[in-house]
Amino acid sequence: MTRTSTAGVAPAPASRAAAGALDALDPLRGFRDRFEIPPDLVYLDGNSLGALPRGLPERLREVVAEEWGSGLIRSWTGAGWMEAPRRVGDKLARLLGAAPGEVLAGDSTSVNLFKLLALALALRPGRRVVLTQRDNFPTDLYIAEGLCELAGARLRIVDAGELLGALDGEVAVMSLTHVHYATGLIHDLPGLTRAAHEAGALALWDLSHTAGAMPVDLDGAGADLAVGCGYKHLCGGPGAPAWSFIAAAHHDRARQPLTGWLGHAQPFAFEPAYRAAAGVGQAMVGTPSILSLAALEYAVDLWLEVDLGAVRAKTVALGNLLVGLLASRCAGLGLSVASPLDGAVRGAHVGVRHAQGYAVMQALIAGGVVGDFRTPDLMRFGLHGLTTRFVDVWDAVEALRRVLLEETWRRPEYQVRAAVT
Amino acid sequence: MTRTSTAGVAPAPASRAAAGALDALDPLRGFRDRFEIPPDLVYLDGNSLGALPRGLPERLREVVAEEWGSGLIRSWTGAGWMEAPRRVGDKLARLLGAAPGEVLAGDSTSVNLFKLLALALALRPGRRVVLTQRDNFPTDLYIAEGLCELAGARLRIVDAGELLGALDGEVAVMSLTHVHYATGLIHDLPGLTRAAHEAGALALWDLSHTAGAMPVDLDGAGADLAVGCGYKHLCGGPGAPAWSFIAAAHHDRARQPLTGWLGHAQPFAFEPAYRAAAGVGQAMVGTPSILSLAALEYAVDLWLEVDLGAVRAKTVALGNLLVGLLASRCAGLGLSVASPLDGAVRGAHVGVRHAQGYAVMQALIAGGVVGDFRTPDLMRFGLHGLTTRFVDVWDAVEALRRVLLEETWRRPEYQVRAAVT
Repeated sequence: MTRTSTAGVAPAPASRAAAGALDALDPLRGFRDRFEIPPDLVYLDGNSLGALPRGLPERLREVVAEEWGSGLIRSWTGAGWMEAPRRVGDKLARLLGAAPGEVLAGDSTSVNLFKLLALALALRPGRRVVLTQRDNFPTDLYIAEGLCELAGARLRIVDAGELLGALDGEVAVMSLTHVHYATGLIHDLPGLTRAAHEAGALALWDLSHTAGAMPVDLDGAGADLAVGCGYKHLCGGPGAPAWSFIAAAHHDRARQPLTGWLGHAQPFAFEPAYRAAAGVGQAMVGTPSILSLAALEYAVDLWLEVDLGAVRAKTVALGNLLVGLLASRCAGLGLSVASPLDGAVRGAHVGVRHAQGYAVMQALIAGGVVGDFRTPDLMRFGLHGLTTRFVDVWDAVEALRRVLLEETWRRPEYQVRAAVT
Repeated sequence: MTRTSTAGVAPAPASRAAAGALDALDPLRGFRDRFEIPPDLVYLDGNSLGALPRGLPERLREVVAEEWGSGLIRSWTGAGWMEAPRRVGDKLARLLGAAPGEVLAGDSTSVNLFKLLALALALRPGRRVVLTQRDNFPTDLYIAEGLCELAGARLRIVDAGELLGALDGEVAVMSLTHVHYATGLIHDLPGLTRAAHEAGALALWDLSHTAGAMPVDLDGAGADLAVGCGYKHLCGGPGAPAWSFIAAAHHDRARQPLTGWLGHAQPFAFEPAYRAAAGVGQAMVGTPSILSLAALEYAVDLWLEVDLGAVRAKTVALGNLLVGLLASRCAGLGLSVASPLDGAVRGAHVGVRHAQGYAVMQALIAGGVVGDFRTPDLMRFGLHGLTTRFVDVWDAVEALRRVLLEETWRRPEYQVRAAVT
């Protein structure tokens, strides 16, 4: 840990038992049993794919066998399928500091980004610039690029430190990710939203690494637009439906361009011309994916029982433990922490660089410690408020220490690159 | 049936037993047992939501409990999740007369329409008109409208009979639905594709009511682009992933604008700028919905066992029976057939108009005969090649006759309108 200052980090527990003592004090400890976690696995990738909520397979079987199998087409009304995107959206709103009617579940984060960036351009007709930051998550950059090319708008990409200076009268929308996918650095959502508004621009937030990881108050901050995925901390399943937030202040003033039939004010009137549904309903496009929505809803229902403030306190503590143990147990082994040491501005994952990070992570995974890797050299360790234990962090650091000391990462099988998320 | 000529329709069987004899001769009769069909239900809405394939709940449970629950993030590579959109696409290609690498599963039909219409404009840079027909399915119209407004293109909407005359040098793409959602009228896909090409335009086909209902030969016809849904005849489940077809001739020549990270040539290189994946892969946008894809794949695997020529012959015969029985059993009861009487140009559903069609359909559904309704007065009866029996058609017509003779549709509860698909 020679390359990273650990000043200000609290001393880490000196033993696994001490870490276990922290688990015993954890007010959220009961929630881990609400998930199916494979025994003997240290799963630190809930920031990429959250664990399976217990009971979800049975709920999905019910949806498949009864609602689809027996109810058939009648379930669109009889089983509440038609309302699912709005109903799940309203539940998500409670995790996001949003009001009922401001959030809609459906489509992917990328598709939703396209819709809402286009909506932002339509809401600021005199402005043609989308402002974003250079190391934003790639899909946020790519989607903005594709939209700008199609719509004749311009994409302005600057370093994070240059955002405020780049907020001029040409900017229609500033599009940022709240928690950085690699470093976990948290943007000042209220402050940057305010700065965007002072420049006459809108603020769009990607909350993919935020939802379920910490409280957020979209309406309190006056945020305009937001998107996020359902498969990370929220545990909605692989490729779960994403969601869109449109602040009530922007309802019914402009429309997004993916004008599908289910975003029509009266889908079953079969009118020849499009009329947008009221409110966030205009973000609906095609027929919603009911099986995936049912899985997401089951997970979100679990989240509605959870105190997100307690989740935040716990993941900060888990992160502090991880950073502290890396300093005390892995010093001199070629690691550097890419994440803020200050837990107050660090999200629910910790990025750790190593020149052979890919191979090191493969060795860890082979040994039952699952994090993930982001090019070129970043290992990510996710800290999930409901499923990660303090002893998991302890065990992960010990495993990492062994991989580095014994150089097991040198084995050829750990060098082979494969696509991972 | 006074308003509809039945000239040319073969005489219908005179009894339920005679209809049953047709079932006994049906070479596809064994497939019905591969689906879960509620007993005592006459389900004639497989063109809106196909029935549940037997065994699918168990497969989905495996995906949820084992691949997600135990495999967790490792299943993106270990369980083939990352390849699922291409793998399912390649299987769908075999039902569509397309080659491997030309079809991708994912997103909704509406979202895919947006992508491919925009791709068509990019492939014909000198042309700015999207041509379509006035009574196309609404989402096909709405999406084209939204795209044209955003991209500064023009939407030209004409009656079906005026399409050929409207194919001038301004048209970039002619976007049509192969089988009409209401009447079931089949467009001449090869002929209209040829006409589009002769005018220098591309042809985009919506095959939502085609896939799984009849053979189609996209490559043989030289079709350029196509989309379709997975939840109708294909039986992929409510809101199943849709699919996109991009003919190989158009690969790598232009890009669609929903440039999400998983449509990047190297998604995990995290490059700052977008580079489209090769071939149909560029139609991928965000993280695919694995649970929904798994359900669709299970259904498509079943379809790969099926002779689509036999499906087509059967649904034509079912449609002929339905039209014939309406003529012989419901004459003078206020019905008119909106579909072609000639089975050769009629898809796998029959539209029947009645001034009180909505209430009549509600009365039928209450009595266990499930079709659906399309405004203003159209009842649709879907004929599914694998699940509909000739006796189902007999029973449906008898039930319809009773509803009309006894005027049970007058009951107040059948007058209340609710959203249905």
